[in-house]
Amino acid sequence: MRILGIDPGYATIGFGCLDQERASLRVVNYGAITTPAGIPLSRRLLQIGEDMESLITQLRPDVIAVEELFFNTNITTGIAVAHGRGVILYAAEHCGIPLHEYTPAQIKLAVVGYGKAEKHQVMDMTRRILSLKELPRPDDAADALGVALCHARSMTSRLPEDHHVRETI
Amino acid sequence: MRILGIDPGYATIGFGCLDQERASLRVVNYGAITTPAGIPLSRRLLQIGEDMESLITQLRPDVIAVEELFFNTNITTGIAVAHGRGVILYAAEHCGIPLHEYTPAQIKLAVVGYGKAEKHQVMDMTRRILSLKELPRPDDAADALGVALCHARSMTSRLPEDHHVRETI
Repeated sequence: MRILGIDPGYATIGFGCLDQERASLRVVNYGAITTPAGIPLSRRLLQIGEDMESLITQLRPDVIAVEELFFNTNITTGIAVAHGRGVILYAAEHCGIPLHEYTPAQIKLAVVGYGKAEKHQVMDMTRRILSLKELPRPDDAADALGVALCHARSMTSRLPEDHHVRETI
Repeated sequence: MRILGIDPGYATIGFGCLDQERASLRVVNYGAITTPAGIPLSRRLLQIGEDMESLITQLRPDVIAVEELFFNTNITTGIAVAHGRGVILYAAEHCGIPLHEYTPAQIKLAVVGYGKAEKHQVMDMTRRILSLKELPRPDDAADALGVALCHARSMTSRLPEDHHVRETI
């Protein structure tokens, strides 16, 4: 099963794609869609929608996993991120790809085993589990791989490494 | 010039379409796109995008005017509305229609002449200016006609009725 993880946004949208076969996980690709500052939000949204559909066409995922928004203190940024996330969900549905959404706490729990883990712990554990030599850049791509990993671990009772939490389907 | 005004949302999206020729304004159509409760937000977003593009294809507006989000106290609803608004802006850009955005205060000022007017004052003044016998239903459609009217009045120095404020381009 090919999983496309997405870290939503409007300036930088991280993506991370994994192939999962039984207990084995393989990184297919990761990176980020970026939109230029200084153009209207609507133009950035158009680019996000088009780039998302290109990415889906290119990677042909079986499922897309998207992080849920956790509203921080900056409401203005939060509104813009929600606009971007709306277009990301639209693009996934428009391409007919099954969609799963995970909260930050679910992702932390699935990747680190602790729902209140720090961001750097999630990134480092993602790197280790996926046997990557270096932390993926930008951070948004590492976060997106974490989302994809969360989905993989939520769908299987066999983990790709020893883990004290036994997950079930 | 044909103006399509939009009152954004995710459950009900109001639309109101006006033809403006010099000082004359004519209502072309108004109504609402509604999405069913009880299905995932992403499915509702797909419908919003598809219905918006159908509406644009059908009405062929020269310009689309969309109300800006004013965040109220309900953050959960606000996030969902921002998701919907993102897809609405995407659809407008995807169809290549020029887009203008107006704050609630700009709409109140343009329609009623007072930036802190009450919602019912905007709706009633919209009805009077457009010579409609009854208030358009649902409220979202009346609001959308108000957005279209705001754009019309922002683009002309000749108002469709006597008004003590002389607006300029």
